[in-house]
Amino acid sequence: MPAPTALRVALLGCGVVGTQVVRLLTEQADDLTSRVGARLELVGIAVRDTSIARDPVVDPALLTQDADGLVARADIVIEVMGGIEPARSLILRAVASGASVVTANKALLAEDGPTLYHAADEAGVDVYYEAAVAGAIPLVRPVRESLAGDRVERVLGIVNGTTNYVLDQMSAYGMGFDEAVAQAQELGYAEADPTADVEGYDAAAKAAILASLAFHTRVTLDDVSREGITSITADDVAWAAKTGHVIKLLAICEVTPDGVSARVHPALVPLAHPLAGVRGAFNAVFIEAEAAGELMFYGRGAGGAPTASAVLGDVVSVARHRVLGGRGPVESSYAQLPIASPSSTITRYQVRIAVDDRLGVLAQVAQLLAENGVSIEAVRQAPESSDDGSTGIAHLVITTHSAAESALAATVAAIADLDAVQDVTSVLRVEGS
Amino acid sequence: MPAPTALRVALLGCGVVGTQVVRLLTEQADDLTSRVGARLELVGIAVRDTSIARDPVVDPALLTQDADGLVARADIVIEVMGGIEPARSLILRAVASGASVVTANKALLAEDGPTLYHAADEAGVDVYYEAAVAGAIPLVRPVRESLAGDRVERVLGIVNGTTNYVLDQMSAYGMGFDEAVAQAQELGYAEADPTADVEGYDAAAKAAILASLAFHTRVTLDDVSREGITSITADDVAWAAKTGHVIKLLAICEVTPDGVSARVHPALVPLAHPLAGVRGAFNAVFIEAEAAGELMFYGRGAGGAPTASAVLGDVVSVARHRVLGGRGPVESSYAQLPIASPSSTITRYQVRIAVDDRLGVLAQVAQLLAENGVSIEAVRQAPESSDDGSTGIAHLVITTHSAAESALAATVAAIADLDAVQDVTSVLRVEGS
Repeated sequence: MPAPTALRVALLGCGVVGTQVVRLLTEQADDLTSRVGARLELVGIAVRDTSIARDPVVDPALLTQDADGLVARADIVIEVMGGIEPARSLILRAVASGASVVTANKALLAEDGPTLYHAADEAGVDVYYEAAVAGAIPLVRPVRESLAGDRVERVLGIVNGTTNYVLDQMSAYGMGFDEAVAQAQELGYAEADPTADVEGYDAAAKAAILASLAFHTRVTLDDVSREGITSITADDVAWAAKTGHVIKLLAICEVTPDGVSARVHPALVPLAHPLAGVRGAFNAVFIEAEAAGELMFYGRGAGGAPTASAVLGDVVSVARHRVLGGRGPVESSYAQLPIASPSSTITRYQVRIAVDDRLGVLAQVAQLLAENGVSIEAVRQAPESSDDGSTGIAHLVITTHSAAESALAATVAAIADLDAVQDVTSVLRVEGS
Repeated sequence: MPAPTALRVALLGCGVVGTQVVRLLTEQADDLTSRVGARLELVGIAVRDTSIARDPVVDPALLTQDADGLVARADIVIEVMGGIEPARSLILRAVASGASVVTANKALLAEDGPTLYHAADEAGVDVYYEAAVAGAIPLVRPVRESLAGDRVERVLGIVNGTTNYVLDQMSAYGMGFDEAVAQAQELGYAEADPTADVEGYDAAAKAAILASLAFHTRVTLDDVSREGITSITADDVAWAAKTGHVIKLLAICEVTPDGVSARVHPALVPLAHPLAGVRGAFNAVFIEAEAAGELMFYGRGAGGAPTASAVLGDVVSVARHRVLGGRGPVESSYAQLPIASPSSTITRYQVRIAVDDRLGVLAQVAQLLAENGVSIEAVRQAPESSDDGSTGIAHLVITTHSAAESALAATVAAIADLDAVQDVTSVLRVEGS
């Protein structure tokens, strides 16, 4: 059978995530074609109301209210409409007609995922759902594939950004629960009705999906015990800190002697644990596996673009299965960009200099930086002292804004030549800011 | 073509990683068969010397010095011998004869990966290498597949555990470089000759692989600019802390206007950055992608069992491609473990109680815990105070060892009934320790 030159893609739903999916399909069209080995052709977008004003990236001619008809003429169906019905019926219809499915629908998967997976197995097609747990964080693929030769023992997840933001604010600023929720609502991190988040329903759905995945067992929402964060007080958070902990809402999935346990509740996490450092609306999933040991996956758990990134990754995988029969890597050098010269590197620097401890030295140094086009972000000056008092030397620590390596090197050479400079003690790059 | 009932697996090399691969293949044999859909049969282990004493898990009858002959009769070849030759020739021979290959050989991939990938593409087989970068951390699969619909902009990696351990000790205890290296050697985190690690050669090889992968471009070791940590002083580390940073050896891969840049050097990382919290010999790779935003992958970057976990994940993937043509998920419910009752959950608790501030109360509370079989890990007692002095109330914070939820609930009920107890203020679980 010759490989197809184009695959017909149907999109069900065009909200925040759907719009970003359209954007990526459009903007990355050429890259996607190289990666898949065939063109991905968006043939229609099923929406409830075709008259709503949408982002200009969405071609109004593609909009349709006939989701059934759209599914019938697609090779790949992307479901980002959410909710149980009609999403479930549409996915089952797609699978039955031989289409591959990519879904971000955590509610549906938590309630009835196994029905979908089973239908896909029967039909010999894919149902992929990376975006349904922890948004942009690659998690389904690593657990299902990378750990396929290992045994997952335990999963601890911060899988709800809203509650993590609320608890983080309580912890950082001593806020009460209500105040922190109000602020999260104002910033768009929490819904007007925050129940699904703060009562742990959203996290429980993800716990069900994670437990099913990690332990190859059918776990549904009803199997997950759930407790939200509404009873957590500023006092609880303060006492947690006093005993070396932070409070996080965790989804916990583990294998116990009695079977698989999945639960969601607030918990004290020791400050030294990697999950303790997960701030704001970020998500992270910590996995303990028998051979691999401790793993953590961190990133944005929600939002249009991050979720769309996860959806598109799945689309490429299912598309490649249709084109290549799933065979491994296409040679990974198709982009073949040039290699940049090391001297063209642009980054920030911190330069530490030992100078004579007298007036005017900083001005001379600053002048040289300016002459070489290197902008100063911060300066810190400290006189050196010994047991006998001042040594007549001061340490100057200069942090720059981004600068080219060549400009920095020229500056450092000129600084070293100044009479008042004893020594350029160290030059270090600053990364990750 | 009917699916095979067994796949012949050849192992090249039987050191620390190879031995753990044999162990996992043996211990997880049944699970692997379910996941692959065929039995994985280890048909031989190529070693240089068949007479060396090995772990009992290794069947001496499988050992052979005839690597060529072994490769010729395998469906899947696992290469964990390391070095450029004969590893490269054996892999190319395997690929040419239609076998799939899994390798953990970072030196070979950094020097000549594209030759291997190209050969695999020509032959229509897989060459997988998850274990070659950051050991157990799933990274290759997430970058190649999960981010296939996105654009990676930048990769910052702590990819060498030895140097991270050394820098971490310098930072935590004010040690000098030599002292920290000596300690790392004593604990087995550093080789007797630590050059490959501390001079950044190991990290540079991984940077080449990461850059090739992230930017679909041929980047070899020669393209990576490299600087080790040997010049980092205790003073540098102290000054970094003063300015709100830690020093980490980073592998940095990015797309610049001039092309792909890959470099390895020590860098100041702001304390609030997720990479700053990566302690000891752990590895982590931080990725910035256009749509997904910031992602981080954390775990053990070396060691026999973690590396073997990554190898086995790849083995399952390539094996499934041979059995199923790579089609998506096998229904994920084959294990079908029972679901444990929530009341059987065993975890640690922190119980906070408001009690009369007088002698003997703690003894009464401790007695009740003991009667219910709940063991105390720590107690903290603090009298409450108001502006007028003592309120006559004290707060008792008790952290328990692991206990069953039912035992804890019974204990809390009994504590609440004590005359001296005003209020059980909160009961929180402690996780992640």
